[in-house]
Amino acid sequence: MTHRVVLVGAGFGGLYAAKALKGAPIDLTVIDRRNFHLFQPLLYQVATGGLSPGEIASPVRHVLSRQRNARVWLAEVRDIQADRRTVLLDDGEAPYDTLILATGSHDSYFGHDDWERLAPGLKTIEDATEIRRRILLAFECAEREPDAAERRAWLTFVIVGGGPTGVELAGALGEIANDTLRHDFRHINPAEAVILLVEGTDRLLPTFPPDLSAKAERALTGLGVRTRTHTMVTELDRAGVSVRTGGSVERIPAKTVLWAAGVEASELGKIVSERTGAPLDRSGRLVVGPDLTVPGHPEIFVIGDLANFSHQTGQPLPGVAPVAMAEGRYVARAIRTRLRGETPPPFHYFDKGTLATIGRNQAVAAFGRLHLSGPIAWFVWLFVHLMYLVEFDNRLLVLVEWIYDYITRNRGARLITGGQERS
Amino acid sequence: MTHRVVLVGAGFGGLYAAKALKGAPIDLTVIDRRNFHLFQPLLYQVATGGLSPGEIASPVRHVLSRQRNARVWLAEVRDIQADRRTVLLDDGEAPYDTLILATGSHDSYFGHDDWERLAPGLKTIEDATEIRRRILLAFECAEREPDAAERRAWLTFVIVGGGPTGVELAGALGEIANDTLRHDFRHINPAEAVILLVEGTDRLLPTFPPDLSAKAERALTGLGVRTRTHTMVTELDRAGVSVRTGGSVERIPAKTVLWAAGVEASELGKIVSERTGAPLDRSGRLVVGPDLTVPGHPEIFVIGDLANFSHQTGQPLPGVAPVAMAEGRYVARAIRTRLRGETPPPFHYFDKGTLATIGRNQAVAAFGRLHLSGPIAWFVWLFVHLMYLVEFDNRLLVLVEWIYDYITRNRGARLITGGQERS
Repeated sequence: MTHRVVLVGAGFGGLYAAKALKGAPIDLTVIDRRNFHLFQPLLYQVATGGLSPGEIASPVRHVLSRQRNARVWLAEVRDIQADRRTVLLDDGEAPYDTLILATGSHDSYFGHDDWERLAPGLKTIEDATEIRRRILLAFECAEREPDAAERRAWLTFVIVGGGPTGVELAGALGEIANDTLRHDFRHINPAEAVILLVEGTDRLLPTFPPDLSAKAERALTGLGVRTRTHTMVTELDRAGVSVRTGGSVERIPAKTVLWAAGVEASELGKIVSERTGAPLDRSGRLVVGPDLTVPGHPEIFVIGDLANFSHQTGQPLPGVAPVAMAEGRYVARAIRTRLRGETPPPFHYFDKGTLATIGRNQAVAAFGRLHLSGPIAWFVWLFVHLMYLVEFDNRLLVLVEWIYDYITRNRGARLITGGQERS
Repeated sequence: MTHRVVLVGAGFGGLYAAKALKGAPIDLTVIDRRNFHLFQPLLYQVATGGLSPGEIASPVRHVLSRQRNARVWLAEVRDIQADRRTVLLDDGEAPYDTLILATGSHDSYFGHDDWERLAPGLKTIEDATEIRRRILLAFECAEREPDAAERRAWLTFVIVGGGPTGVELAGALGEIANDTLRHDFRHINPAEAVILLVEGTDRLLPTFPPDLSAKAERALTGLGVRTRTHTMVTELDRAGVSVRTGGSVERIPAKTVLWAAGVEASELGKIVSERTGAPLDRSGRLVVGPDLTVPGHPEIFVIGDLANFSHQTGQPLPGVAPVAMAEGRYVARAIRTRLRGETPPPFHYFDKGTLATIGRNQAVAAFGRLHLSGPIAWFVWLFVHLMYLVEFDNRLLVLVEWIYDYITRNRGARLITGGQERS
């Protein structure tokens, strides 16, 4: 019987594993609860009206349509029976010889689960259109608000978390307020919007070299964004946030609060831990061995944001797309190696560099000792992301849209859809 | 004091009136409950994954941003006080000297309001993404359905109503089943999908010349669509529909039913009728005078799908975009004429022709006695729609996307978003 591989999750890790298994003598079942792969690094562009959801999502089925050893199931995994080597779905089951788990992560509110409704994060298409709705609606409400204090609250945007997502959101909001909406209102001046980026540690982009953190902060300031480090959110409600900087607490009236403060691994980690005894870290990630498998279960691979792999530097590899893609490719190679009766070498991650964009012409990039910022970094960022999209799904259109938006400084996808209530 | 014009509804009629009032010595307030103008003729492309919502929607505020005499309010109209010349909003009011009502129409289920949930119509962006979700999900569920009868029900699509919207949806569904999804599945053959177009009268496209109805039917048959005329839906539930053709009733198991059977005017018609005594027709439209005003209220204009204008042919003008646009432009001219102290001439509609598309290379068009079909009609259809988009909002991108999709036979925006339940 053909070796059965079941792969759960079609994000960067999962889909790269699936593609790298093309032509392998296996029977591959790819399971995801969504029908599309999402290019998460550009999700902030959907949240800020620059791109449409369809432009950063590709149907998993379409991506794998020519790969004859793969089938795609739209289903949700409920449990795993490691002894029976079977994945239990909401409506059926899938037996495996090798299992690859790549279900990723979701926003973490650090125990404040009630904040999720008040301050949406940016992990799904629905998150992005909800954030877009709130941002655009805030300007609309400000335009018609007679009370000055209320108007100011509508025009105050707080972004919690100064990592790459927070920086990208803040930069895009700065451009919206200063450029995109410049001529659109009669009673308010969008450029008077207050965009506040709050970070708990001592600098923005804490995983980047300090000189690039400083450059990112300067670039954001140039876009009118106020940044506040060493600052934690202590309260959050419909009227605003309370933030603590050192010993002093300040109340900031704000109708729009966005969450980019951190993630935790998918629930599946806990289930696998209970079924196999595999250790979980504090973020809910499964601690994996040097070959990315669960201890005692060499047939279960864990990759991407769901995995804690610390064998290389002593620190877990970061939850970013390049790591997940490298892990996906490694697992595919490891499976092929094993099918030949050999033992795969341990996983080793070659760090190609880190990038974050801030806005039109502004980005920061670290490639080992080479640090770039400004327009050069921005073009590198653009090139890397477009190359991925083009390689992946011939998404040349996104390039066209960007060139167009770049020239016209427009953002075409400014739709308020979904929930109709306005507060 | 400047003459105050309040315009409700930024569809084709409203937005063309607003644009044609550019530079007029008035104070214009445009009110809509959505923040975008929707290019409804291409909504079926969103419903079938060919275009993204953002590509057929333009923010009203953006369209009017350079028009200094216009402000835009995101608000919903609750009532009208004709004696006070004031529009009551959900959160405020707007006094007017001239009022233009252009709130359009919505799907009519002819008394079966419970069918709306079962068989969505195609009037809003949310409708379109919901239809897209149901179509794509049906193929996904069929792929994993072990029972042959159930699988057949998942692969059966019933479209109720053989007007332009029904024909366009059926044609696009035929292409999806035969072309787009051809290589995507392992257990089902999408080309075996049954697409049934049901029309109550004796032919498809009843408002078109009979020879074009026949051509549309042949083109649909070529795409694998089965058409059934003289047929009414008598029952509709989650498992399928019952249809009556002549005296015989047939039960058709189908998990996906789409509604394109007719529209009725917006609720505002009833309110205005109560407040002013203006007559309503059976579809809820306000019967207007030769100058598109409400009887006894020369300061209230009604245009587009909300108006019943029968002074030209004895029949009401059809509820299509060209009529609404012409009425919008007329009202703008009439207001300017009155401001000069003159009386505007009555409205006269010059019929430029009718178009409906069926699929790649297939359309029908009637320009007076000139009837076109096939690729020529399709290129005319494409040209007319793209010219509108380009003129309106520089939507060259849609052209690029279409050329791309045309060459690759792909549909890029195949996302299942929103509600997660799968039945």
